Amino acid sequence: MTTSILSGMRPTGKLHLGNYFGALKNWVDLQEQGFQCHYFVADWHAITTKHDETENIRQNSIDMVKDWLAAGLDPERSTMFVQSLVKQHAELFTVLAMITPVGWLERCPTYKEQKEQLGETRTANYGFLGYPVLQSADILLYSADFVPVGEDQLPHLEITREIARRFNYLYGNVLKEPQAKLTAVPKLAGTDGRKMSKSYGNVIDMSEEADDLWQKVRQMVTDPARVRKTDPGDPSICSVFDYHKLFSDATQCSELSDGCVNASIGCMDCKKQLCAHMESFIEPMRQRRAGISDKDAMEILHRGSHNAALRAEELMVEVRKSMRLDMECIR
Amino acid sequence: MTTSILSGMRPTGKLHLGNYFGALKNWVDLQEQGFQCHYFVADWHAITTKHDETENIRQNSIDMVKDWLAAGLDPERSTMFVQSLVKQHAELFTVLAMITPVGWLERCPTYKEQKEQLGETRTANYGFLGYPVLQSADILLYSADFVPVGEDQLPHLEITREIARRFNYLYGNVLKEPQAKLTAVPKLAGTDGRKMSKSYGNVIDMSEEADDLWQKVRQMVTDPARVRKTDPGDPSICSVFDYHKLFSDATQCSELSDGCVNASIGCMDCKKQLCAHMESFIEPMRQRRAGISDKDAMEILHRGSHNAALRAEELMVEVRKSMRLDMECIR
Ligand code: SF4
Ligand code: SF4
Repeated sequence: MTTSILSGMRPTGKLHLGNYFGALKNWVDLQEQGFQCHYFVADWHAITTKHDETENIRQNSIDMVKDWLAAGLDPERSTMFVQSLVKQHAELFTVLAMITPVGWLERCPTYKEQKEQLGETRTANYGFLGYPVLQSADILLYSADFVPVGEDQLPHLEITREIARRFNYLYGNVLKEPQAKLTAVPKLAGTDGRKMSKSYGNVIDMSEEADDLWQKVRQMVTDPARVRKTDPGDPSICSVFDYHKLFSDATQCSELSDGCVNASIGCMDCKKQLCAHMESFIEPMRQRRAGISDKDAMEILHRGSHNAALRAEELMVEVRKSMRLDMECIR
Repeated sequence: MTTSILSGMRPTGKLHLGNYFGALKNWVDLQEQGFQCHYFVADWHAITTKHDETENIRQNSIDMVKDWLAAGLDPERSTMFVQSLVKQHAELFTVLAMITPVGWLERCPTYKEQKEQLGETRTANYGFLGYPVLQSADILLYSADFVPVGEDQLPHLEITREIARRFNYLYGNVLKEPQAKLTAVPKLAGTDGRKMSKSYGNVIDMSEEADDLWQKVRQMVTDPARVRKTDPGDPSICSVFDYHKLFSDATQCSELSDGCVNASIGCMDCKKQLCAHMESFIEPMRQRRAGISDKDAMEILHRGSHNAALRAEELMVEVRKSMRLDMECIR
């Protein structure tokens, strides 16, 4: 049997390069490596912290999935679906809720962290506390072998594994304990040097138009000590150079680094080169994206959700049977 | 539009007379009064406190529903269904979880009470904490006008009403706030004078066989001061007399009361009369029950669940639309 992968993203709309390098690129790589991949739009999850901002959830889903396709996800090889269209996620969530101690959830480090970061209004709800239970349902429903995660998400995955073990202990061996697939993710700061995030207004979209791209690159923060072109710079503390490491090849990087340290090239030239390399990276994705209509994306999601539901239902049949909740047993 | 009623029972197997007078009789009365009734087997609720005892959940459902039918519930007039067969309950639970503050649940008096009564193992789970959320989903899914409740369940219904108000405030007017239908319920103690409960072994089943019935009535606790037939008794402190008030008519009651106070009848005679009256009450139900096979009950539940799901889906279409979770809006 093919090794299976599951991962999801909240519907945040158009993706930026931070999303691409932080997660989406890895999704495409996993597809190319031949894994059986399930990728989903985590719309119910989005409501856990943004119950008062659901107006654009659908358009955001479409805008995001167009970027998935632009990046190279292929509906023939990867199942792309919408969480809320596969009702089995809610059913398994409901059932797993009955065997998950509240203590496991309260002790989860991300729970405490997020409560501090997002504040009480966004995190006071029962669904937010149960976020790891819903996430466990997402994963266990597809008997995922691996879940691509960053270090910070390991505690969540550990809860999923504990829930699976508890279920199997109580009702028989039905749920597969997923393994973490830790992925080293290149750091890509926003144009102002802080974490790239829509709320900071420092993002570069995956489908950024050439003109806008230049405007953004031009204004990027560099080594602050390099005021004039004749001042030598330090590429190791310059965001522009971090970008070069992703978009320029090794020879180009070493030439630019030398030129910066020797003060033989100016920051504008350095940025122009970066912009050109970024544009040749972004351009084909932008083209591909332009060829995908909202309707195309919708159809892919509908078909994917249908297929995901078929697979999820197979697992739920086993779940119900093992818990003696199936009605067929008595007929 | 017909006024609608919703109520559920956990699948505890054969019902006893305490269940009958405490709830089921009222269900039948409501049906006879022409309400549009939805009655369900609360199997997911049963797991909230008994996740480790699910083996008999299906047979218990069948055994219970046969008593519903024996008592006079009519599938042509009342929809009888199984909660876990109507997936919309899980979907609405998931969605309402996102807008229900944990504080509302922790402050619920029954939560604290049950934690003390049932102990930590039975009440530590996330699903137990969220019990009023699942119950709200049950009620709101059918736009129930009234929910028959006892005084003690009023706080739960209040949470349901608050959740409905919160949803409507956030997403538009979709959920109907249910009203409590308080019902005065005659107290029917067990054969030992304590609360009638399977765990005390003091129950009389709705379908008790005549011989067993007499064995149980014979051993019932009476006025303990009445040792000999010549001792006058006090019917007001005698469980047997409480039973007479339900199973014997007013004339009979007043004669028995006099006979007891005057010491002109003995407790055995008093019990024999009770047993005869109980038997003529139980006998037709027992007959009706004997005519219903497990398969009949299953079919009624399957048909009822199908119909309930159709109705629940109508509401969910509105819920998804108002939250902007419907996919159709974009097509
Ligand atoms: S030359 Fe390039 S690497 Fe050096 S400080 Fe300027 S932008 Fe940064
Ligand atoms: S005569 Fe009847 S009512 Fe009086 S104590 Fe005996 S059983 Fe009770």
